[in-house]
Amino acid sequence: MTPETRQLAEGILRGNRLALSRAITLIESTKESHRLDAEALLDHVVYERSRRVREKGRLKPGNSTSNAACVADEGRVGTSESVRPLRVGIAGPPGAGKSTFIEALGKYLTDSKKLRVAVIAVDPSSSRSGGSILGDKTRMYELAKDPKAFVRACPTSGVLGGVARYTNDVVLLCQAASFDIVFIESVGLGQSETIIDQASDMLLLLVPPAGGDELQGVKKGIMEVADVIVVNKADGHLLTAAQHTAAAYQHALCFQRRKWDAWMPSVTLCSALERHRIADVWEQVCSCSDVFRRSGYLRLKRQNQDKYWVWNSLEDILVRRARESSKIKAGVERMEKELGKGTLTPRSAAEILLADFFEEQKSPTKSMAPFQQST
Amino acid sequence: MTPETRQLAEGILRGNRLALSRAITLIESTKESHRLDAEALLDHVVYERSRRVREKGRLKPGNSTSNAACVADEGRVGTSESVRPLRVGIAGPPGAGKSTFIEALGKYLTDSKKLRVAVIAVDPSSSRSGGSILGDKTRMYELAKDPKAFVRACPTSGVLGGVARYTNDVVLLCQAASFDIVFIESVGLGQSETIIDQASDMLLLLVPPAGGDELQGVKKGIMEVADVIVVNKADGHLLTAAQHTAAAYQHALCFQRRKWDAWMPSVTLCSALERHRIADVWEQVCSCSDVFRRSGYLRLKRQNQDKYWVWNSLEDILVRRARESSKIKAGVERMEKELGKGTLTPRSAAEILLADFFEEQKSPTKSMAPFQQST
Repeated sequence: MTPETRQLAEGILRGNRLALSRAITLIESTKESHRLDAEALLDHVVYERSRRVREKGRLKPGNSTSNAACVADEGRVGTSESVRPLRVGIAGPPGAGKSTFIEALGKYLTDSKKLRVAVIAVDPSSSRSGGSILGDKTRMYELAKDPKAFVRACPTSGVLGGVARYTNDVVLLCQAASFDIVFIESVGLGQSETIIDQASDMLLLLVPPAGGDELQGVKKGIMEVADVIVVNKADGHLLTAAQHTAAAYQHALCFQRRKWDAWMPSVTLCSALERHRIADVWEQVCSCSDVFRRSGYLRLKRQNQDKYWVWNSLEDILVRRARESSKIKAGVERMEKELGKGTLTPRSAAEILLADFFEEQKSPTKSMAPFQQST
Repeated sequence: MTPETRQLAEGILRGNRLALSRAITLIESTKESHRLDAEALLDHVVYERSRRVREKGRLKPGNSTSNAACVADEGRVGTSESVRPLRVGIAGPPGAGKSTFIEALGKYLTDSKKLRVAVIAVDPSSSRSGGSILGDKTRMYELAKDPKAFVRACPTSGVLGGVARYTNDVVLLCQAASFDIVFIESVGLGQSETIIDQASDMLLLLVPPAGGDELQGVKKGIMEVADVIVVNKADGHLLTAAQHTAAAYQHALCFQRRKWDAWMPSVTLCSALERHRIADVWEQVCSCSDVFRRSGYLRLKRQNQDKYWVWNSLEDILVRRARESSKIKAGVERMEKELGKGTLTPRSAAEILLADFFEEQKSPTKSMAPFQQST
């Protein structure tokens, strides 16, 4: 690890937002040297954070003990789990008011609950060079300038596996920077929901008041995985519509199979614009988190997610190593003629090349993780 | 190879359509034993086909020599290339009349040119259990019952890499079954175009007559990769509209950068319904194929495609082997605790597990391809 990276790591572990931001930029880089730096950095901060937490036995004073019943509860499961923040996925159709809602809930938590809040907006449709990073900071203006909050857009255009892993890496960095709550917002439609489901503890579905056909705009699949449903914009002339929408969701829930026996998804009304009933929403999130934790669901879910990310990283590393293998590259050129003649199928060529590849990989350049070095 | 598979292989090499159909079903199977059978079968028929062609020096009499200038030309490049059929990708917006067009062109080729025609419809949106297989056979009723033709839908729902490789495997089977022309039809919208581009020699874009805004419904990206543009439905009251549309495309081509200097994409009118000017379309396809072949573009394109498929297969095999590795599976379970504690990142876990995996893979179960066995 370079001295610069080490400095960055120390910054993250102190909860410095600028260091966190720079580390995410490092993770986003497609440059090989940056990637290696980012991986070393991530390994180091994740390991260091858990070591420090274990040493102190508890989270540092001021960090979510007295004021935050919900988050402190998280930690009470065992010393092991207090390392990890509460991760809430937030999904909803366009126009539900997700940004305003996250700003309202985020400010409530930083101001009233003295919690440190990170917001990650996952947008599979936007590209890194696009305007979404600036756009998101503008959308959540108050939260972005709050010293107890961190807002970042993750433009995830690129390889499928890479997209998901990258989101998880950003969550891990927020964890290392001692954030108490991480909101993972699904900006795009479609594939981002899967990523969010694999990266969060629970899913909050935010919906706007609807017209005649009550559940319009919300895909059935999303509703089935929602743990907390919030009807936003329950203010002004939309109040009655919001109440009807809430009733319709409550009704729909009766006919739906539960994800987990111990928890019945709830429906709450709020107005993010008027910052009204935000405390009710937070109470629902805490109830859900509490049930998930006590019933063992959270432990099970996190175990499955950990496994998912290991497999995801594994495939990612394998494919990358193969792509970088000079033996395979040379082999493909060598086989050009046979392939052209039609005497060799691409799969047979691949099988032959893999034998060489495995030979080459017997002494991998990087297989020692900080975990191994320290035990 | 089991006796049944050997029998199937012989059937395919004789050009038997039932055997070809059964082999594709084998490729579609997700069962492990079927997959191994299918791979062995594919290797065998591709190798055997090229061996037999080389032995005879030329294609069998009756198989596209005298009547089919276009396809015979294909073979004239060298004995090596005569193994491979002409592969024409067909794309177009919904409502362009792709099925009717392929049926008209296909029947023209089997009847007037005495060529053997295979049609593969790639549909990324449909699933294997869906109705598209039957649906497609119904769509091209005349062609499906023609003994010189073969029609098959490839429902490609599933893994991304797998989708593409599977399409190429089906094309290779058609090649082994001595088809002269393979049409690869893009049924769905979006991602299927990439697959078609990697699996075909040229791309035919089929469009319907348009209204005021002439090029509506056709994505700019597709037009840029089209080699032959055909305006369908040039009949009845749509004739004038079709003529205007053709002029608009011709005009648009002037402002477009060419894919390959030697070939200027052409625009042809036809009526698939009335089977009118189908010969003109075929002439354009032959001209394009001829230019591509003479200018060296075809050789270059096929070389790049071969490499693409090798890499594609390689990644596919690597990921599958990792997924099947008992060492990795056991390792993931073993690391559960460290992952849960947050002392180990998923990527570090993956790096550690990969060392074991490479150890395990030093003696792969299958690395000898027929290509190696015979040389």
